[in-house]
Amino acid sequence: MNVLWVLAHPEQQSLNGSLFDEGLRALNEAGDAYLVSDLYAMKWKATVDRGDFTDEPDERLIVTAASRRAHLDGTLSADIRAEQEKLDWADAVVLQFPLWWYGMPAILKGWFDRVFVKGFAYGVTDGDSGRSLRYGEGRLAGKRALVVVTAGSPEAALGLRGINGQLDHVLFPLLHGTLWYAGMSVLPPVAVYGADRVTQQQYESATARLRDRVTSIRGTEPIPFRYQNGGEYDDALVLRPELAAGSTGLEVHYAAERRHGSRRSRNEVQASSR
Amino acid sequence: MNVLWVLAHPEQQSLNGSLFDEGLRALNEAGDAYLVSDLYAMKWKATVDRGDFTDEPDERLIVTAASRRAHLDGTLSADIRAEQEKLDWADAVVLQFPLWWYGMPAILKGWFDRVFVKGFAYGVTDGDSGRSLRYGEGRLAGKRALVVVTAGSPEAALGLRGINGQLDHVLFPLLHGTLWYAGMSVLPPVAVYGADRVTQQQYESATARLRDRVTSIRGTEPIPFRYQNGGEYDDALVLRPELAAGSTGLEVHYAAERRHGSRRSRNEVQASSR
Repeated sequence: MNVLWVLAHPEQQSLNGSLFDEGLRALNEAGDAYLVSDLYAMKWKATVDRGDFTDEPDERLIVTAASRRAHLDGTLSADIRAEQEKLDWADAVVLQFPLWWYGMPAILKGWFDRVFVKGFAYGVTDGDSGRSLRYGEGRLAGKRALVVVTAGSPEAALGLRGINGQLDHVLFPLLHGTLWYAGMSVLPPVAVYGADRVTQQQYESATARLRDRVTSIRGTEPIPFRYQNGGEYDDALVLRPELAAGSTGLEVHYAAERRHGSRRSRNEVQASSR
Repeated sequence: MNVLWVLAHPEQQSLNGSLFDEGLRALNEAGDAYLVSDLYAMKWKATVDRGDFTDEPDERLIVTAASRRAHLDGTLSADIRAEQEKLDWADAVVLQFPLWWYGMPAILKGWFDRVFVKGFAYGVTDGDSGRSLRYGEGRLAGKRALVVVTAGSPEAALGLRGINGQLDHVLFPLLHGTLWYAGMSVLPPVAVYGADRVTQQQYESATARLRDRVTSIRGTEPIPFRYQNGGEYDDALVLRPELAAGSTGLEVHYAAERRHGSRRSRNEVQASSR
């Protein structure tokens, strides 16, 4: 398997730096090929601007249109094209970062803002139906994505009723709104909690989990997000009323087989077991 | 009222540019003072790195510790200190951005990563109790925050059961995990949907709403997020079982008076009306 490992941490001598080394070692021992995008080491430019579109006329900049044009013409800046080539090569992508303000560090958000342009990661339509291919379909479909995140928060405070919000809901914009939107199969994240005060024993447990997860990317069941074009959403892209009937909240966008889904409706379970 | 308006859009000739102009005009007409942080115009540096901490020894960088030290010593880089001074001056902050990948553009995420350092926006403890002041308390408590966001998505797809996730849950890391975490009173966001194809009529309706909202910042009821130290969370920062009993999901972190909260329990409504 070909793995692209994207790291967003400023300090090599850190918990993230050590986990990164361990993860790559595990891939190596398993015989997987990998490429690395160590965004800080690359001095990755975080901000989308006119410079990303090298052949864009000096007029009003419309980012989506300019990025699509530049992608089609091959005139995206070289750093963006290099990342896209790595993604095309990869069967799986690992995204590793510390949780800052309950999201990605800006340098990694900017990797998505700049690399996931229209025509590459979204904005692709099915030739026959004319439907937009997204949320489970698209040019990146078939690839797997694994988020590896460290959090200062203890686990309970990022749990189902923890004050910080449950981790997979806090990460919904990345897991669902970005990776799944682009068509990728998204695996449950690997999280290391209490990251500012990890004991040796906790560290060893975390690396064992990480090694296990990165060497079983192919065999891990993805998060069962619903497909946009699978008949579960209506033409306005609203979930059909008979699914997760009467419920709201991000959990409705997970299919019924999700294990700890407290909002799973009886009807759905019956329907899916038919 | 003193307002700091933070804008994150690369093109002045855009819907965001026009909304920004209208918003400032409305503040001006209302007699409010304002300062502007036009992040693209300022060429704001998005990425936290060693350069933010001008007096940091050339050793292993621990971002939280380094940022706290530099904040206390006055050795944060000048661009960060300038933003902090604007925040200290402001009674209210407007954060305006296009929704990119269901979050802030990297340049704005980096504004929070770099400006909201330990000791300034979090990591403050109560002298008597020793408790961390966050989620409704802290050094920035008393200030109001208003998010103004444009989204390509139509409204229904960002609604309660829309495929993209309901907007305030998608923005939870910003509204709750950042602004409320830092102690600020967070107002319901102003959203302009279908932003890639706004008609003249829709534009006029959007600017009217925006003018109304920015001139009523003081009188608008904030989102009723729960306080960390209000007795609703236990010592592990998990919501007490009698509140939103049996429920999970981000909605449990809104107090019972939230109007469209479908997970509002009868007990809570009774308790809050006593």
